[in-house]
Amino acid sequence: MAKKSAKDKKSSKGKTSEKVEVVTATSFTQALRAGEGFELVELDPRSTPGFDGDKVAGEEALAGLGDVLAELQERLYAESKAGGKRSVLLIIQGMDTSGKGGIMRHVVGALDPQGVNITSFKAPSAEERRRPFLWRIRKALPTAGQIGVFDRSHYEDVLIVRVHDMVPASQWSRRYAQINAFEQKVAASGTTVIKVMLHISSDEQKARLAERLERPEKHWKFNTGDLDERAHWAAYQEAYQVAIEKCSTEAAPWFVVPADRKWYARLAVTELVLEHLKELDPQWPKADFNVEAEQKRLAETP
Amino acid sequence: MAKKSAKDKKSSKGKTSEKVEVVTATSFTQALRAGEGFELVELDPRSTPGFDGDKVAGEEALAGLGDVLAELQERLYAESKAGGKRSVLLIIQGMDTSGKGGIMRHVVGALDPQGVNITSFKAPSAEERRRPFLWRIRKALPTAGQIGVFDRSHYEDVLIVRVHDMVPASQWSRRYAQINAFEQKVAASGTTVIKVMLHISSDEQKARLAERLERPEKHWKFNTGDLDERAHWAAYQEAYQVAIEKCSTEAAPWFVVPADRKWYARLAVTELVLEHLKELDPQWPKADFNVEAEQKRLAETP
Repeated sequence: MAKKSAKDKKSSKGKTSEKVEVVTATSFTQALRAGEGFELVELDPRSTPGFDGDKVAGEEALAGLGDVLAELQERLYAESKAGGKRSVLLIIQGMDTSGKGGIMRHVVGALDPQGVNITSFKAPSAEERRRPFLWRIRKALPTAGQIGVFDRSHYEDVLIVRVHDMVPASQWSRRYAQINAFEQKVAASGTTVIKVMLHISSDEQKARLAERLERPEKHWKFNTGDLDERAHWAAYQEAYQVAIEKCSTEAAPWFVVPADRKWYARLAVTELVLEHLKELDPQWPKADFNVEAEQKRLAETP
Repeated sequence: MAKKSAKDKKSSKGKTSEKVEVVTATSFTQALRAGEGFELVELDPRSTPGFDGDKVAGEEALAGLGDVLAELQERLYAESKAGGKRSVLLIIQGMDTSGKGGIMRHVVGALDPQGVNITSFKAPSAEERRRPFLWRIRKALPTAGQIGVFDRSHYEDVLIVRVHDMVPASQWSRRYAQINAFEQKVAASGTTVIKVMLHISSDEQKARLAERLERPEKHWKFNTGDLDERAHWAAYQEAYQVAIEKCSTEAAPWFVVPADRKWYARLAVTELVLEHLKELDPQWPKADFNVEAEQKRLAETP
């Protein structure tokens, strides 16, 4: 195990040029990051940045990541038991049917649940509406060693809220700066923030809604409100563009994941988590006891 | 899917004798339940009740349960979205190294994390100690549609507390009846309670502790206190025996899972959850909207 982690460390930091076994290391982070001048409208939702294989190859690649991911997650968790303060926060945003649930099931589901905390942000409660919009977010931040996952987030407060004028423009327009200041503090406190937008096309949403209507076991996922929201497609795309433009910071960049192909979105989000964990490179804590003495004590028990 | 669930329903309830495809259906629940006159000391921790295959067969059997489990869990979750109140609570108890973490990782980890809530009960905080012992337990009960999982539980209040006389005997001795009354109410409110003790032998614990001491990446899991606790092995076994005897009720029976073989324990706990979900037999909610009207509306969108 120690040997494997040493190898991961090297390849993730690119410090070795002799032999790069995982050719895609760090490439998803680079390929998907929304940088200067990013335009959502120019990103093809069917494209597969950072990966040039097909579905079968993608599923194989994903299956191959499990062991490394498991070890890195356990190392992060173990580190915290020895006083480490670091954690990861994965934020998942996307239009209805963009596959957030599938990411929870297949990507987050592949992690050890003991080190994961999912928070699903629905429409705020009466109490939450009385509080500052970041109040409920702060309460849900991951503790040391954890991978926190947000299914929707504070970005709803500049997405649905903006599209439907739920608060005055003077109020939501200030939120971008508030979000940046907040995320900066979260990052500075030791939490690696990974913000993901699952980017689907309008046609793909139409097809996925049609499927929900067609299959009785999917009816419970459908709300008549989904079609009302669909009518605001363009306004949502614009709200996403602005949120990404204003809030893709050094401390907490946005990653926009083309999501018309579910297999790609799952691979990409897994790789993003994996690459960030490799960058953190948590280590197994050293024993805080005398190993030989304990071995002797154990041997002497019946 | 509908066809499959109909079949599961029949076989789990034993109402059909024509063709039983899953020969083990309900057998784990029956084989592992601690009934009248149960004696922990008589149960071999290396035995595999309800299953007569070896490790390879056990792992294959486990892998084959994923799809049915996923569908039943999703149906329980979906049911709650349509007003259903039912939930499941899986309680995992066991001596140190009995494999609680592995059950969380491999059994609970196989479930959809969106419908799971794990609570790990450590030594109570100062506030928790001031409250009645069931206070923190109540707060962690699963909501409708959820599978709650307790890693340790209120049983610690009649296990470690009893072994170490942390409260007067007059106090812990009343707790068995309090637990029974509490669990009865929990069950009556719609929560199916599955209480599992992972039963290992003293020799197996010794071997597992030795392994933790031998492998540097396992050192963080080891506490010198583990060996102090090991010295109380017999007292713990007795405390478990009493807890199981007094608290294996109709409303919330105990299941004692031989756990020296990890593959068996994982299979058995998965089967216990699966068999209970089959018994609940949650159904996909019916659409609360006009499907054809919505299909027409969708078709008319751009």
